[in-house]
Amino acid sequence: MLSLVPLLTAAELPAAHKPATVADIVAASRPSDWKPLDPENTLYMQLPAGRVVIELAPKFAPEYVANIKTLVREGYFDGLAIERVQDDFVVQWGDPDHRRSLGAAKRSLPAEFVVSARDVPFTPLEDPDTYAPEVGFSGGFPAARDPAVGRAWLVHCYGMVGAGRNDDVESGNGSELYAVIGQAPRQLDRNVALVGRVVRGMELLSSLPRGTGPLGFYTKREQRTRIESMRVAADVPARERSRLEVMRTDTRTFAELIEARRNRRDAWYKVPAGHADVCNIPIPVRPRLRQR
Amino acid sequence: MLSLVPLLTAAELPAAHKPATVADIVAASRPSDWKPLDPENTLYMQLPAGRVVIELAPKFAPEYVANIKTLVREGYFDGLAIERVQDDFVVQWGDPDHRRSLGAAKRSLPAEFVVSARDVPFTPLEDPDTYAPEVGFSGGFPAARDPAVGRAWLVHCYGMVGAGRNDDVESGNGSELYAVIGQAPRQLDRNVALVGRVVRGMELLSSLPRGTGPLGFYTKREQRTRIESMRVAADVPARERSRLEVMRTDTRTFAELIEARRNRRDAWYKVPAGHADVCNIPIPVRPRLRQR
Repeated sequence: MLSLVPLLTAAELPAAHKPATVADIVAASRPSDWKPLDPENTLYMQLPAGRVVIELAPKFAPEYVANIKTLVREGYFDGLAIERVQDDFVVQWGDPDHRRSLGAAKRSLPAEFVVSARDVPFTPLEDPDTYAPEVGFSGGFPAARDPAVGRAWLVHCYGMVGAGRNDDVESGNGSELYAVIGQAPRQLDRNVALVGRVVRGMELLSSLPRGTGPLGFYTKREQRTRIESMRVAADVPARERSRLEVMRTDTRTFAELIEARRNRRDAWYKVPAGHADVCNIPIPVRPRLRQR
Repeated sequence: MLSLVPLLTAAELPAAHKPATVADIVAASRPSDWKPLDPENTLYMQLPAGRVVIELAPKFAPEYVANIKTLVREGYFDGLAIERVQDDFVVQWGDPDHRRSLGAAKRSLPAEFVVSARDVPFTPLEDPDTYAPEVGFSGGFPAARDPAVGRAWLVHCYGMVGAGRNDDVESGNGSELYAVIGQAPRQLDRNVALVGRVVRGMELLSSLPRGTGPLGFYTKREQRTRIESMRVAADVPARERSRLEVMRTDTRTFAELIEARRNRRDAWYKVPAGHADVCNIPIPVRPRLRQR
C-alpha cells in the first residue's frame, strides 16, 4: 500500500541514539516533563458524541476565565448549542436564540488580548514567523511576543479556544466561545481574547457538518449540536474526571520535540524542513500516569 | 449576539473608495480576473454526500497528473473508498484492500516534488515565510521558490491534494491521494508530489469522522466513505459539469486581495496583522458567469 507520511511512527533511529521522532521523545520522557491539568482551570463540554476537554489559560485572560467559569457554574451553557461551523476557520457555540440570562456573570470585560511579557514564561522558537516578531510557547500554550513593546499573547493555532466579541473590544464576556478548526487564523491574534485550548475531543468539533449560512452559521435549528453540559473539572467527582497531562513546554524534552518537528527523522522524509511553524508543533497530551 | 469575525462581510469602506474586504474585491473584479477550470485538468470525485471538484496542476506534476487521469479513465477509483481521516492533517483515499489493478497506469513515477523556477509563473508574497525563502502564487496555486537554486514547488495549504508514496521517492503513482484538512503540513513540501487542490466540496472531506486507527486510518470497513466515481470533467457531458472559475493570481485584483488579507479593513479588526501567510490567502472560486 502507498502509505503516507508516518507522522508519529518511529522509523530509523539515528546512530547517536538520541530520540528521533515525536513518538520516541514522548516514550523517553520523564514524569517531570508533564504537568497534570488543573481541575480548577479545566472545562468539560459534554456533546452527544462525547466529552471535549478544554485547558483554560488564566495567565493570559484572567477576567475572561473567571467569567466563563461563572457562566459554566451557573449552568449557562447547558442545553445550548454549537451554532456555527465555518470550514477552515472556527466552530462556535453559545446561545443562538439570545434568550439566556448571563446571571451573575459580567456583560463586558476588559480587552485581554495581550499581557505584559514580564508576567508570563516564554520559550522562544528560533524560526521566523510571518505574523509576530517572536513566537514560542508559554505554559503549555502557543504564544508570541514583541520585545520592542514588552507584550506577549496567545496565538490562534488549531484547537485554540477564544471568546467572541462584537466590534467594541470590551463587548466580549465568554458567553460565545469558538475553537479553531483550520489553518491558523493568525490575523485574529491581539484582536480577541484567547482563553485556552482543546486538549481532548477536538475531533468531535472539527468533524461537525459545516453550516451553510453566512459565516458558517447553521440555517436550521435541527442542524445544531446540543451541548448537554459544561462543567469545571473541579466540580466533577474525581473518578469522573479526564485524567490527562500536558507536556511542559519549558523543558529540554520539549526542545527535543521541537527539533524533531523542525527536522523529521522518519525514513519517509528526504528533505528536512529545517524549520517549524509554531502552529505545527502540537503540544502532546496523554492520559495521566498512575502514581507508583 | 456576540458575533465573531465577519471574515467575508463588508463593513466600513475606507474614504479612498478602494475595495476594502475580500467580498468587495470579488464584487468589483472583472471577468478577466478569473479563469474557468480546464475540463481536461479537473476531476470530479462523487461521494454519497456530493461532488468534490479538484483542479489539477499539470505544470508542477505532469507525469502524476497524466497517470491519475489514466487511473480515473480506467474507473480505478470507482467503488473505492476514503480510508483515512487524521485530524488536523489529511483525508486519504484509494484502495484500502490492495486488490485493484493499476491497468495501463504506471506503477512508479519520477519524484515530481519541485520544478525549475523558470518553467512556472510566480507572483511573490512580500511577507516572510517560516519554511521557504520565498512564497507566493503560481497559476492559481499556493507555491514557494528558492532563487538560490532556481526551484519552485507547490505548498501544502488547506485543500491541497497530493499523491502518497512509500519511502522510495519514486514509489508514488497517484493511486493513493490525500487532501490537507488542517494546519498546513509544510514539512511535506518538496517531499511528495502535490497534484492539485480541492476547489469545491472541501467540506465533504473535512467533516468526515476521524479514523481511530494509527495515522487516522479507519479500523472498520463500514467507517469508510465510498467513492461512487471519479471522472475527468472533460469526460462528463457539458451540462453536468461544475461550471466554476478560479481567481487568477497574477493580477492587480489578486494583489488587492492579498492586501485585504494582510490588513483587514472590517470594523471588527483593531490591530491589522500587517502580514499574511501564503496558506491564509484562500484563492476565490465561484460559479462561472454566463456569457452575455
